[in-house]
This record gives sequence, C-alpha cells and structure tokens, in this order.
Amino acid sequence: MPDQSVPQARTPEAPPARPESVSGTGGISRRALLGTAGATGLVLGAAGGAVGYAAAPAGATPLTSVGSERAMFHGKHQPGITEGLQARGHLVAFDLAPGAGRKEAAALLRRWSATAERLMAGEAAPHGDTGVARDAGPSSLTVTFGFGHGFFGRTGLEKQRPAALDPLPDFSSDQLDKSRSDGDLWVQIGANDALVAFHALRAIQKDAGSAARVRWQMNGFNRTPGATAHPMTARNLMGQLDGTRNPKPADADFDRRIFVPVSGEPAWMANGSYAVVRRIRMLLDDWEKLSLAAQEQVIGRRKADGAPLSGGDETTPMDLEKTDANGDYVVPLNAHARITRPDENGGAAMLRRPFSYHDGIDADGTPDAGLLFICWQADPLRGFVPVQRKLDRGDALSKYIRHEASGLFAVPGGAAKGEYVGQRLLEG
Amino acid sequence: MPDQSVPQARTPEAPPARPESVSGTGGISRRALLGTAGATGLVLGAAGGAVGYAAAPAGATPLTSVGSERAMFHGKHQPGITEGLQARGHLVAFDLAPGAGRKEAAALLRRWSATAERLMAGEAAPHGDTGVARDAGPSSLTVTFGFGHGFFGRTGLEKQRPAALDPLPDFSSDQLDKSRSDGDLWVQIGANDALVAFHALRAIQKDAGSAARVRWQMNGFNRTPGATAHPMTARNLMGQLDGTRNPKPADADFDRRIFVPVSGEPAWMANGSYAVVRRIRMLLDDWEKLSLAAQEQVIGRRKADGAPLSGGDETTPMDLEKTDANGDYVVPLNAHARITRPDENGGAAMLRRPFSYHDGIDADGTPDAGLLFICWQADPLRGFVPVQRKLDRGDALSKYIRHEASGLFAVPGGAAKGEYVGQRLLEG
Repeated sequence: MPDQSVPQARTPEAPPARPESVSGTGGISRRALLGTAGATGLVLGAAGGAVGYAAAPAGATPLTSVGSERAMFHGKHQPGITEGLQARGHLVAFDLAPGAGRKEAAALLRRWSATAERLMAGEAAPHGDTGVARDAGPSSLTVTFGFGHGFFGRTGLEKQRPAALDPLPDFSSDQLDKSRSDGDLWVQIGANDALVAFHALRAIQKDAGSAARVRWQMNGFNRTPGATAHPMTARNLMGQLDGTRNPKPADADFDRRIFVPVSGEPAWMANGSYAVVRRIRMLLDDWEKLSLAAQEQVIGRRKADGAPLSGGDETTPMDLEKTDANGDYVVPLNAHARITRPDENGGAAMLRRPFSYHDGIDADGTPDAGLLFICWQADPLRGFVPVQRKLDRGDALSKYIRHEASGLFAVPGGAAKGEYVGQRLLEG
Repeated sequence: MPDQSVPQARTPEAPPARPESVSGTGGISRRALLGTAGATGLVLGAAGGAVGYAAAPAGATPLTSVGSERAMFHGKHQPGITEGLQARGHLVAFDLAPGAGRKEAAALLRRWSATAERLMAGEAAPHGDTGVARDAGPSSLTVTFGFGHGFFGRTGLEKQRPAALDPLPDFSSDQLDKSRSDGDLWVQIGANDALVAFHALRAIQKDAGSAARVRWQMNGFNRTPGATAHPMTARNLMGQLDGTRNPKPADADFDRRIFVPVSGEPAWMANGSYAVVRRIRMLLDDWEKLSLAAQEQVIGRRKADGAPLSGGDETTPMDLEKTDANGDYVVPLNAHARITRPDENGGAAMLRRPFSYHDGIDADGTPDAGLLFICWQADPLRGFVPVQRKLDRGDALSKYIRHEASGLFAVPGGAAKGEYVGQRLLEG
C-alpha cells in the first residue's frame, strides 16, 4: 500500500471535481424537480419504459448535500477517478459470455452508459428500475467502466489491446485467488449512500443480460461525509492515515501522470487511465498486537497525525537521512512510507482511491477485512509496478498484509454527449 | 417481514431519543474538546492505558451533525433500540469459552460496558485503541448487549432464565444455518460511519479475550443520513418502504409493548426488551422479474409511496374489505401487509429496526443480500411469534425470501452510572 493521498472534495487546495450540487434551485430538491417530470407522464415502472421517479411526498425534508451532490457522467475523463472518496463502493468484473463478441460488447457498453448517465443524475434506470434508490438523491454516484486483457481477444480487437495491459509481474508475496482476479470487463460503482450504490450494482448486472456473466464482485466503504473533522486524508482499517502523498489535481504534472495523453497509444485510450485493483487483506489480529511504537516503525509515520518519524506534520517532507542517538535511521530502511516515496521511485505516481472492505470473519475467527486498493495511472509500468516491486522486496508492512486478488483494467476516457463509454474502441 | 415502521430521528412526530449533539459548544467540536483532555496528559496509545484522542489538527473542518451526534450509554433502556436507523451495523454473537462461568461473564460485561460508554462518547477504547475511529465524532454509535438461551446454563443462572427465551417455534419455511444462529451473548453495533462501527466491533472482540469466542458475525447498512428526502420510512433492497406500521415512541402503549415492565419477570429484565434477529435473504433475481403490479399484489401496498392498495397515502388505514369490479379483494388475502397488520394480530406489536445486508454473490451468481431483521418487544410470544406463524402459513412474499439464521436474546435494561449492563443479573 504505497503512501500517497487521495484528494477529498472538502480539501481547500484541491477543489476540482467536486460533485455538482443540484439542491441550489431555490430550495427545490432534485427529487422534487424529477417529480415534476413524473407529473407530466413519466412514472416509475418495474416492467420497463420508465424514465423518472414520481414526486417526493408532500412535506418531505429537502435533501441535504449528501443526497443532492452529483457527479457528471459526460466529460473528458470518466467519473470515479478524481472525485473524493465515497462512503460505499462495489467492484464487479464480468466475462463476456461464450459467443458474445464485439457487437454484443458494443451493445452492452451502450446500455451501461445509458444506465450510468441516468442513475448518476438521480433518475430511474432505463428498464425495470427496482425502486431501491427511490426517494434518494444522486448521492455522488459514479459508475466507471474498464476493459481487461481478455476482452480484446474475445472481441477480435487484439490489435487495439494496449501494451500497458500486459499481465502484471508476479510478486513473491502474492497469494492471488484467480477466481477473484482479472476479468474481461470491470465496473467500479461508488456513492455516498449504500442503497444508491446497491441499486446501481443491480442495474448494471441486469443490463449485462446474456452478453456477460459476473466473474467476481466485492463491496467496500469509506467514511460517511461529515463524520470526521480531518479535512483530507482517510484512515484505513489499521488506523493509519492512508494517502498522505497522493498526487493532487492541482499539481502541474497531475494529468500527465494519471491520464493517457491525447497523443498516446492506442488512440482510443486518449484521456483514459489504467486501474490496478488489489484486494489486500490486513492481518489485523497480528497488527493490533503491536505496540503503537512498533506500528509507527513499520509505517515510518506517526499514527496520530501521519507526520514522518523524522518530524513535522503530515505534509512535511520525510528526512530520510535523519539518525537517532544510536546512529540508526529515524525512519527505518524498511518502513513502508520510505519505500513508497514518489521521489524514491523515479517520480512514479499513482492516484490511490481505495475502499476499505470487511466481509465478516473466516472459519478460524480471523477478520476478512482490509483494503480494496485501487490506483490510477497513465502507465502501470511506471506507476504501480516499480513501487510494488520495491515493497515486495523489503516492506516491513508486508508481514501484516496479504494480496489476495488482482486486476488491471484499461479505463477509456469519458463519453461525450451522445457517445457511450468505449465507443472509440468498439466502433473505431 | 411484518409491515411496521421504525421512527427516524428526523421524523417530526417522533423526536424522542434523538442523539445528543455535541457540536453546539461555540463551534468547538467534540474532538477538539477531547483534544484538550489530550493536552493534559491523556494520549492515545496502542499498548493500553489511553483514555482520549489527541486534538484534531489545526484548521480542521468542524464536525457536521453526522459525526457529532451522540447517543447516550447510560439510561433507563439500552441504546440501539429506539434510535433512528444507522447507516452501518454489525451483529456479533459470542459463546462463552469452555471453563468460563458467571465470574468471567461478569468481568466481560464490565469490560464491554466500559468500552461502549467510551466509544459512544467519541473517546478511545480503554485498552489498546486501534485508532480506526480517530478524527471521527461519535457518529451516533450505539452498542447493545443481550443474553441468549445458552448463557444461563453456562453461568449457573438457569433460575434467572426468562421463559420468554424459550426457543422460537420451528417455522415450515425456515432454512436456518445453526452455525449462524443463536449464541450465548449478542452484541448489536450501529453507527452512521462505517469506520466508527468497525472500530467498535474490533474493540468488543478484543475485550472478549479468553472469556468468549465469536460464534457468528454479520454486517449491515441503511441509508446515509441526508441521502433521502423521505422523512420517515426506509426502503429495503426489494425497493419497498419497510416499516410503515412500526409503533412510535409517542404511542401511548409504546413502552408497554416494547419494554419489560418494572414489575415484570424476571426482575433483572426490568426496562429490558427481547430482540428477535433473523437473517432474511431476498431472492432478488426472482423478485425483480415480477412486474410492478405483481410486486404490489404481493405486498398489498403501492411501491412508490407505501399507500395501501385500497387507497390513500402511506399512513391511511388499510381497507381490508374493499373489492374491485370483479368482487375480488383489492388487498389480496395473502398480501404481506394484510397478514402483518397489528390489529389483525391481537394488537401484538414489535419495533422493527433492521439493517439491510449484502455479502456479495454466491457461486451460482445469485446475490447474497437481504435484511438483517431485528425486532424488539416486551414478549416475543406476543410480538414476533404470532405474526411469523401467520406469515409462515400464507404470505405471498414467502416465495421471495428465505430465513437463513435466527436468534432470540434477552436485552436487559440500561445501565445506571457506575453500573454495567447485566449487573442486576450477574450480581443479583
């Protein structure tokens, strides 16, 4: 788990990509506006054809910002990459069904894009909406689509497969479950409300129809907006501030590091990004037995505020050369934060935007909990891979985590109006 | 799933038990106040002895109401019964370890009570806090403790076992997994922030030490506060308003129906309540294939607004005799809402306060999702059992749900200051 920071919507220095609020229309909530549409004949129906929810009941409480905040589906980039962490997330991978090829994939991406656009606006799904998100606002819902290595062979598009999708190298510490790794298609769903996220997951699964089958599916979470006074960096289930050194959209080289340039290869990936997904279990029973001091030696930062052990606060650069009275490095050589420093890795940078996960307990009583690590970069061979190689060799944290699943996906740029995600690949 | 309603903190007519806000102290957040304590020598430590979190970093955003809202540990009743639904929940059952008896159980309840009191106030756990909730406010955390049937034999307290804990009758539609049912001890954790809830779960598990072992553990969720404009009734994962007829704390007979009277038996259960817990899987693939009209016939209410099919709005009494042009009942005889009407069940009433759950997908691709049904009543034989008996015989909904686990727990009254939960039983 490299040591970098995700920008939050509330961060003063990183205000971009803040979801558009739709509650600022004279106190009329998004749902009430949609209700007007409902009154003109658009009603919810379980049997298809519905395009809007009915009006909220009279006297309903106006939506707060949690419900009314909205991310945009159309744009240069897909949503779900630079937005603040969301309280609930679903990751789901699909394999194309036997017999399904380029044509079926194109139709599927067209359906998915239509559904994502509607749901992100707080509207009902185009076909057979389940009603689960009814009454709720968009709640910062994002839906993000990616292609895995296998997709290109199954659709006859091998020549369009990016070299960046070559399989990740094996890491010695990996204990990967292949049935929960990879996949032809990947969808990331995030929202600040669990029912809104679940509603989107079911709609995406339904859209898959006979074209694709679920390969694996995972659930995650982050803090609820407003639960914490800490403005920027999230804690993970080990209690660490996790994401301190994340690149920020305001950084001059942010776009270059995270997104494929317009002049890049292949052309259909312009403004896209590559997502590395790792299910990283935390061995919490072992971790929690360590003293606070021992935990801080493993990480190289203070647990309370994320400051480097060499001093300062969370944003202070780490003094790698500082030694104590015995001549030992204050930040140990195998400390996680030392190994993952971007300037120790040729300037490699990835944008980490994870969810925590907790799937209960195993039969032996140990918690099945940890991090759904998701990182974004213009080139995985310059972002994730070199950092993970170094971690694999000597990270003090490796005793307390286990990589259990892995995926690498090409996430194309955002769809323009009238376009669907991946159209430039599938109709290129 | 009987058809009754949980009061929400935002409901105008049901304002009691609203969590106390701790942010109204001149703009100083709870964490900042705790930080003052930290500056006087109370600091977080992983190795025990810590009693408070350090100050939030300078310039931190004040907590919003989500983080700062606080439920009270001490009181007539335990917390977690009448409060509004929380965004995240954990249910965990323990069995006493071999050799552990009344003395060890008393020490455990004392530890648990001390931890619950601290965490509900937004403070660190008494011993070895993991730091996961650090920076967050109390976030309406509640921790609730109950005793199962087996507890009394293992502690030599058979004579104190309430008759109300006699095993629930078998229902023909049950498909119960015994390994995820029952248990000597039961803990319900709820909070509006997922990390705050997880933090409490780990602290409770750690406190168990060698006295008790986890038997089963389940995770659930509800809407995020502010995500919906609907003021009162939650939707479940079928998209139904679920809880329309729930008794309300303002009802004249609320206390009598939900809580054991001071004059009740056994004496240690005064002001306590009985919790029935059922893991009810929803067969969503089948349910979602039904048309909207067919779903409404199964439930007996309109999906959009929860109004009875006989007309009106959500709160309109159901007209059980109303017939259509063909002479058929408008609310079908096997409709779920008809069968579960309290006035059709001898006035039996239970307070339902559930969490939805979603544990991913099974190997066959079907969703493992549904309801962690939790209902509260003064007497399960007058609350849950008669309603479930009727549902078992003829509920149209039964084709679309499956009861997979079950528990029944005696939840004693709240602890007074200086007392721990269950003390009147364990030291009575």
